Amino acid sequence: MKFTKMHGCGNDYVYVDCTKEVIPNISETAIRVSDRHFGIGSDGLILIKASDVADFEMDMYNADGSRGKMCGNGIRCVAKYVYDHGLTDKTTITVNTLSGIKTLKLTVEDGKVSKVRVDMGEPELIPAQVPVKASVLGLADDRREAIVAEPLEIKGRSYDITCVSMGNPHCITFIGEDVRDFPLEEVGPVFEKHELFPERVNTEFINVIDKDHLRMRVWERGSGETLACGTGACAVAVASYLNGFTGRSVDIELLGGHLEVVYDEKTNHVFMTGPATEVFSGEIDL
Amino acid sequence: MKFTKMHGCGNDYVYVDCTKEVIPNISETAIRVSDRHFGIGSDGLILIKASDVADFEMDMYNADGSRGKMCGNGIRCVAKYVYDHGLTDKTTITVNTLSGIKTLKLTVEDGKVSKVRVDMGEPELIPAQVPVKASVLGLADDRREAIVAEPLEIKGRSYDITCVSMGNPHCITFIGEDVRDFPLEEVGPVFEKHELFPERVNTEFINVIDKDHLRMRVWERGSGETLACGTGACAVAVASYLNGFTGRSVDIELLGGHLEVVYDEKTNHVFMTGPATEVFSGEIDL
Repeated sequence: MKFTKMHGCGNDYVYVDCTKEVIPNISETAIRVSDRHFGIGSDGLILIKASDVADFEMDMYNADGSRGKMCGNGIRCVAKYVYDHGLTDKTTITVNTLSGIKTLKLTVEDGKVSKVRVDMGEPELIPAQVPVKASVLGLADDRREAIVAEPLEIKGRSYDITCVSMGNPHCITFIGEDVRDFPLEEVGPVFEKHELFPERVNTEFINVIDKDHLRMRVWERGSGETLACGTGACAVAVASYLNGFTGRSVDIELLGGHLEVVYDEKTNHVFMTGPATEVFSGEIDL
Repeated sequence: MKFTKMHGCGNDYVYVDCTKEVIPNISETAIRVSDRHFGIGSDGLILIKASDVADFEMDMYNADGSRGKMCGNGIRCVAKYVYDHGLTDKTTITVNTLSGIKTLKLTVEDGKVSKVRVDMGEPELIPAQVPVKASVLGLADDRREAIVAEPLEIKGRSYDITCVSMGNPHCITFIGEDVRDFPLEEVGPVFEKHELFPERVNTEFINVIDKDHLRMRVWERGSGETLACGTGACAVAVASYLNGFTGRSVDIELLGGHLEVVYDEKTNHVFMTGPATEVFSGEIDL
């Protein structure tokens, strides 16, 4: 099987052009190639396929073999792959995912894609839809308004939290000290499993650098700390705007790189722009 | 740069045939390719070179860019590489390393190397040479006899320890409970930094399965728990023989696979036999 290893802000997948390759036992193959010592090593396997309803289809599998719905960092790499490898010459493409059809705008420099803008859709703010159990915070469970800057006590400390879904639930908290020194490993799991979040939660810890810049670390449900989380960065931009810390456009520094996020006033959509990097290509016997 | 990713019992390196490739800034390249998210992902980089004093030379670099002396799991992969890729048709080869010239015997099945036997040389048992500060145990520092089954208290528990160097220092302890449930992360670092070991130490925790089989987990100095440690497995076989738990030939089960070790009576050398696996080949722009 021929493959290409790519990453978006350190979120790395093995990409296979399934217009040319046929993969047997996809779930087992995903587990095998993802292993970082015995396989190729990645966060999962992404198959690039032809589509009847969009320019391409992204079919993604996590490292544990389960199917993924959508990945903001992964889909940028899909866009880079199809353009750089000559599968398309369009600079605006649509990609079908299990979360619907996504539209991507490609920035091309010297014949190669350098960055990609992804329309990540509208944020969901209604607590029951995120989902967040508002009653745990002393609010009505049928509340329609967003949860913004509500105090939550975790391990003896009060955090002001804002809750946003971008297809998956996020809890965002802006903290005073440098996030790089924050004990994420101790605090992240307590947020993740808090009774407030019936489907558990991804938690972002944020420093406001200035009105255009944020620094972020993320604790993802089921994964722990990761180098980057695309939906998380989008949720953070929305939360920061709702709190009045930044405008509708913001640069977010993650451990694995930078993402620019715009929370568009006209469409209410969130647009995320970031890099996509091809690391190497290879061939493996399955 | 063309490369091949290989592993021996999960100890994985990027291998480059330097009879064909020239690598600039080797130390930086090692750091870059070893990164498991932004690079190829490995425990380090191993360059296979021509040699004036042996059949080949193994030049190895750790993931932090430092130069390594020798790696028992890595050198088996070097043997598989040179045979399978047609650089030699010999089934006994010599490889020059920073720890001297090593002799390897290749087992070939269906035209490919399936396992490799490495002459790992003689164990060093004299405490000051391991090095172990025997006086910390109430023994003479100029003692010539091996330290075998001496009690050492760590975190309120008494461990019977045996100390062996195979070019690097090892402390071996045989425990009653299943090593797979042992709290290695808590206990390993205390052994590593104990005043008994002036150059720190690798510690092996062992279950005796029967007189031919051992199960092992290892805490490596500077690395923490690893899937396999070739010199460690050799030190364990010697220690087990000295304690009377096994004979001179033993099968050791590590997290990453199995190694057969023979502590040869005639030569006093330790011979380690194990698998070598090619995972994939690829090309990366440096």
